Amino acid sequence: MGRTAKAKAANEADGGTWRFPAGQGLRLDSGARLEPLEIAYKTYGALNAEKSNAVLVCHALTGDQHLASTHPMTGKPGWWDRFVGPGRPLDPDRHFIICSNVVGGCMGSTGPASVNPATGEPYGLTFPVITIGDMVRAQAMLVEALGIETLFAVVGGSMGGMQALQWAADYPDKLFSAVIIAAAARHSAQNIAFHEVGRQAIMADPDWRGGAYETAGVRPEKGLAVARMAAHITYLSEAALQRKFGRELQRDGLSWGFDADFQVESYLRHQGTSFVDRFDANSYLYITRALDYFDLAAQYEGVLAKAFQAARKVRFCVLSFSSDWLYPTPESRDVVRALNAAGARASFVEIETDKGHDAFFLDEPQLDAALKGFFTSAAQARGLR
Amino acid sequence: MGRTAKAKAANEADGGTWRFPAGQGLRLDSGARLEPLEIAYKTYGALNAEKSNAVLVCHALTGDQHLASTHPMTGKPGWWDRFVGPGRPLDPDRHFIICSNVVGGCMGSTGPASVNPATGEPYGLTFPVITIGDMVRAQAMLVEALGIETLFAVVGGSMGGMQALQWAADYPDKLFSAVIIAAAARHSAQNIAFHEVGRQAIMADPDWRGGAYETAGVRPEKGLAVARMAAHITYLSEAALQRKFGRELQRDGLSWGFDADFQVESYLRHQGTSFVDRFDANSYLYITRALDYFDLAAQYEGVLAKAFQAARKVRFCVLSFSSDWLYPTPESRDVVRALNAAGARASFVEIETDKGHDAFFLDEPQLDAALKGFFTSAAQARGLR
Repeated sequence: MGRTAKAKAANEADGGTWRFPAGQGLRLDSGARLEPLEIAYKTYGALNAEKSNAVLVCHALTGDQHLASTHPMTGKPGWWDRFVGPGRPLDPDRHFIICSNVVGGCMGSTGPASVNPATGEPYGLTFPVITIGDMVRAQAMLVEALGIETLFAVVGGSMGGMQALQWAADYPDKLFSAVIIAAAARHSAQNIAFHEVGRQAIMADPDWRGGAYETAGVRPEKGLAVARMAAHITYLSEAALQRKFGRELQRDGLSWGFDADFQVESYLRHQGTSFVDRFDANSYLYITRALDYFDLAAQYEGVLAKAFQAARKVRFCVLSFSSDWLYPTPESRDVVRALNAAGARASFVEIETDKGHDAFFLDEPQLDAALKGFFTSAAQARGLR
Repeated sequence: MGRTAKAKAANEADGGTWRFPAGQGLRLDSGARLEPLEIAYKTYGALNAEKSNAVLVCHALTGDQHLASTHPMTGKPGWWDRFVGPGRPLDPDRHFIICSNVVGGCMGSTGPASVNPATGEPYGLTFPVITIGDMVRAQAMLVEALGIETLFAVVGGSMGGMQALQWAADYPDKLFSAVIIAAAARHSAQNIAFHEVGRQAIMADPDWRGGAYETAGVRPEKGLAVARMAAHITYLSEAALQRKFGRELQRDGLSWGFDADFQVESYLRHQGTSFVDRFDANSYLYITRALDYFDLAAQYEGVLAKAFQAARKVRFCVLSFSSDWLYPTPESRDVVRALNAAGARASFVEIETDKGHDAFFLDEPQLDAALKGFFTSAAQARGLR
């Protein structure tokens, strides 16, 4: 712990908001340009003298840079707190861990709630549509700004895993290893369908105001809550929902009305209402859109293996969860097949669990073991202590 | 065809709306009483002299009595048109087929849009919460009113299958056979969760007006459309969505905006907007609530087999679809196990298909064959020609 404290002191700010100077805007896949560009980030640990121990963690749809530090709005521990710490897979005593809020997000990075320099008003729907590739390009700019040439690892679950895949495609020479958890190389029709329900729920809320709610001083809270509820179901397996809640009632007996009779209803309502306290509706629209647009093979003439042609030297670890029905194991297998076809080294583990997609946030000993094993072996190969 | 036409002529009205006389209200599971009670229904074929050929078809959540006749609002063929006709599983030349709109529905049966006699206004949320048992009790009243003592068969898919199960529990002596397709003996936590998302979407729509939208002259169309979109995803398998739509675009190239870029988005939006033309938001609330409350075993001290104790003489046919993730095959197996434990005769087929829950509406040759085989054998046992 003493060492961690010292390491933190060495990197005074533990992150902040990186404001890229004028002229250093973000080139977007849409052809547009985003400027000014700010990227909010957190760091844990210190960069070593060889600058060889940097790990970039990419967050999921509703995640943020507060990987292992108290969330400023909810007061809750970081979303991957349990994986970060001395002796844990990500160890600030050994790694310089970076986590940045994606472009389009709402936790400090430039997004739809930022001021559009052309109007002086929040962007709202004038914010350009962004992609996973754009998120990764912004991260690469941050990594470069931090003086890092090569990442020891890029790591992510769900949308974070998609960013890790995009990193391997776009910046193979800047990567030593990549960990992709519960992800996919493209959004399926069902994935798009669920996101579209969420977007329609937000846009159906009259307080959305065509995206200009900030200017109007309102927020589409009900629509965003419904979007979150629909999405949340996809994060859990049917078995996990049944085990946690079954048909258990909130009170003794049914209400014979539309109150939350069942615990699962109350739980979902809570997921919806607490989400709106920490997330922005327009960011939800833009980030779900980025996910729906994601199709890595399509960027390479429809052949996924081509995306990894230049990443043959990168060490990959692909992990899936047996009960994940959002990005089920066959999606991970497709990635592994493509990595193999490209001649990249890929280890793959399907973790048996009934917890569903969200297992990557949860206490899943096999996941800990797989990550620890992979990082230890990669560290040896990299010559890290 | 000539015979069908004659049969139809014999039952002049082919249905209509049954208005139960004063004093003949519906006793509800909640303890309340619903009066006056009207049940809208359609019939096909004619009751034979022995009154032994009546088949009651129970519709699903958003279905109605227009089983095999043009829908008056959409102009589309009946929802099970392809199963009804000469030589088809349900044959008006042989069967007297009855299909009634459930109580709580919006196609003519007493429901939340009906006038509350206590106020002279539409019920809205003053309509009592109803159950699958209540729906079945109303059907039993109609069947009795039509002069039928015993049904040759009760048949239903999805919520219709739940009604068939409830019939077997509540009126075993009035049944010769029962066909349960793609159903379950209770709503799971995930089932409840999806319905709760839909209800919250409706109730979040300011045009819902606490359920009193009819009086206000508005309709919560956006909320109801979102509810339908979320539910519709559960009716199709992931494979079916992928096969039908994949990542196919609506136009050449992406819009880089929030228009429907993908065909699956456009399809879902259409499902939502066309649904509101034919369905009532409050009915959706009440019927989803009835489904969530459904737990047949709970009515029998938690032992499903007890529900079928008195139904040992009823012939059961239970059918499930391999890719149905709304009411997956294990739910049907639980029903069959309970039927076996009760000593009832049950045939069970899991139909291999990638079409998901909605396969029971679709061209599925195995389903046709299974139904035809079951009805033929039951007809022989019943002594029907």
